[in-house]
Amino acid sequence: MRMPVETRYADYDSKGHANNAVYLTYFEMARHRVWVDRMDGDADFPFIVAEATVRYVSEAMIGQALEIEIVTSEVRTKAWVWSYVIRATEGDRVVAEGRTVQVMYDYDSRCTIPIPDAVRAKLGAV
Amino acid sequence: MRMPVETRYADYDSKGHANNAVYLTYFEMARHRVWVDRMDGDADFPFIVAEATVRYVSEAMIGQALEIEIVTSEVRTKAWVWSYVIRATEGDRVVAEGRTVQVMYDYDSRCTIPIPDAVRAKLGAV
Amino acid sequence: MRMPVETRYADYDSKGHANNAVYLTYFEMARHRVWVDRMDGDADFPFIVAEATVRYVSEAMIGQALEIEIVTSEVRTKAWVWSYVIRATEGDRVVAEGRTVQVMYDYDSRCTIPIPDAVRAKLGAV
Amino acid sequence: MRMPVETRYADYDSKGHANNAVYLTYFEMARHRVWVDRMDGDADFPFIVAEATVRYVSEAMIGQALEIEIVTSEVRTKAWVWSYVIRATEGDRVVAEGRTVQVMYDYDSRCTIPIPDAVRAKLGAV
Repeated sequence: MRMPVETRYADYDSKGHANNAVYLTYFEMARHRVWVDRMDGDADFPFIVAEATVRYVSEAMIGQALEIEIVTSEVRTKAWVWSYVIRATEGDRVVAEGRTVQVMYDYDSRCTIPIPDAVRAKLGAV
Repeated sequence: MRMPVETRYADYDSKGHANNAVYLTYFEMARHRVWVDRMDGDADFPFIVAEATVRYVSEAMIGQALEIEIVTSEVRTKAWVWSYVIRATEGDRVVAEGRTVQVMYDYDSRCTIPIPDAVRAKLGAV
Repeated sequence: MRMPVETRYADYDSKGHANNAVYLTYFEMARHRVWVDRMDGDADFPFIVAEATVRYVSEAMIGQALEIEIVTSEVRTKAWVWSYVIRATEGDRVVAEGRTVQVMYDYDSRCTIPIPDAVRAKLGAV
Repeated sequence: MRMPVETRYADYDSKGHANNAVYLTYFEMARHRVWVDRMDGDADFPFIVAEATVRYVSEAMIGQALEIEIVTSEVRTKAWVWSYVIRATEGDRVVAEGRTVQVMYDYDSRCTIPIPDAVRAKLGAV
C-alpha cells in the first residue's frame, strides 16, 4: 500500500530536513492507515511495536512531497513485520527505508497473544 | 517556581528557533514539575486545560539555555490560572510569556469538579 | 478555507485525547496549506508568529476525524490575524478555536517588514 | 555516560506508555548531551544519522523515571556507532536499547567527511 505522507512544518529540524525520529512517526502513520482503513481495525492499536529500524538514505527537505509504501514482509505466530520505503514524490528518490516488528497484544491481560485469523488473512493483502 | 527548560534538538525548526507549538509543551513541563514535585500529584493530571495563550517575545535559538517560571495567578471555584515566563538564561532575556486555564476534572464521571481543598492550599504556594 | 486535519497516533496523550500543544501544530498545518497552496508561498515561512491562543471546547478523542477552518480575521501594516475553528467531522461539533498573529519578517535582515501587496491581496481571500 | 531522561507528558500515548518514536528522540537527547557537554561540540550537530534501531524491551509508563546510557561502540573512518540502553530508574529494568550510526558531514559542501582527530579522540571516552 502506497500513500502520501502528510508532513508538518514542525517535523523539520534546524537543518531544514525531517528530524530522524519523525520517520518512526511516518511509519506509524502508514500502520495506522493500513490498520484502520484496510483491516477495519480500531484506531487504538491492539499490538505493540517490538523493534524498529530506519535507514536514512537521502535528505527529505522542507517543501518536498513524500510518499510511503508499507508491505507485510513476514508473518509469524504472534508477530509480523512491516517494511517501509519513503520516497520523495519528485523523481521517486528513496529517502528512507525501514521495518517494524509488531506483536499482537491483549491490553486487558497484558499478554502477547497469537495473531487472530481475521487479522492474519488481511495482513497478507497489505 | 523557576526551573530550567530541558529543550530538545527536535524542538527547533528549520529557522533554528524553537517551534511555536513547543512552548505549550514547555508550559506543560512546568505544570508537570509543579504538580508532581510540589503538590504531590499524580503524573497523569486530574485536570483539563481549557485555554492557553502564548506571546512570543524574542527568539529562542538552538544552543541557548532557557528557564521557565510558573506562578498561580488566579484561583476560582473549579478553575485556576497559571502564568508563565520563559527566559534565556544568558542575559535573563524574556523569550515568551503566556497563561493556561486549568479546570479540575473527574475522568471517571467525565465532569468538571470543584478544586479540592488540599489542591487549593498548595496552588497558592506555587 | 476548510480542510481535514491529518491527525497522528502520537498526537494523542495518555487520556486518549489530542494533547493541548498539538492544536498549535494543527493551526500551523492550516497556515501551511493556505500559504503554500493558496498563496503560492514558500514552505519555509517568511513570517513569525507573535501570539497564539487556543480555547479547548470539547474533547478530540482518538479515532475521531477532525476538520479545521482558517480565516483571515484582521490585516494590519506588518501583521495579520488568522482565526481557526477545529471541528469533529461527525456532528460538526466544535473541538477548539483560536487565533494566531503573524508578522511579516525578513530573515536576512532579521527585521519585521510591511506585508507585501501581493501577500495582502491574497490574505483577503483566505 | 549515563544520565536521566527528561520525559514529557506529551511523550506518552493513549496506552499510557512512551510512544515508540520518542525513543529516537531520547537517543538524540543523549547524543546532544554527549556532543555538547563532553565533546565541546556545537548544538547544531555537524553529522548526520545514517541508521537507527530500537528494540523495545519493556514498557515505560507515565510517571516512571528513566535513565539513558550512551556508549561509543564502534569508530570507522567517517562514521561511528553509538549504542544506548534506556532503563527505568526503579529496579534498573531495561526498557529499550538501540544504536545509531553517525556520519561526519560538512553542511557547506554537503559531503561526508572523515572524522576529525579531535572528535575521534573524544569519541573513545564516551
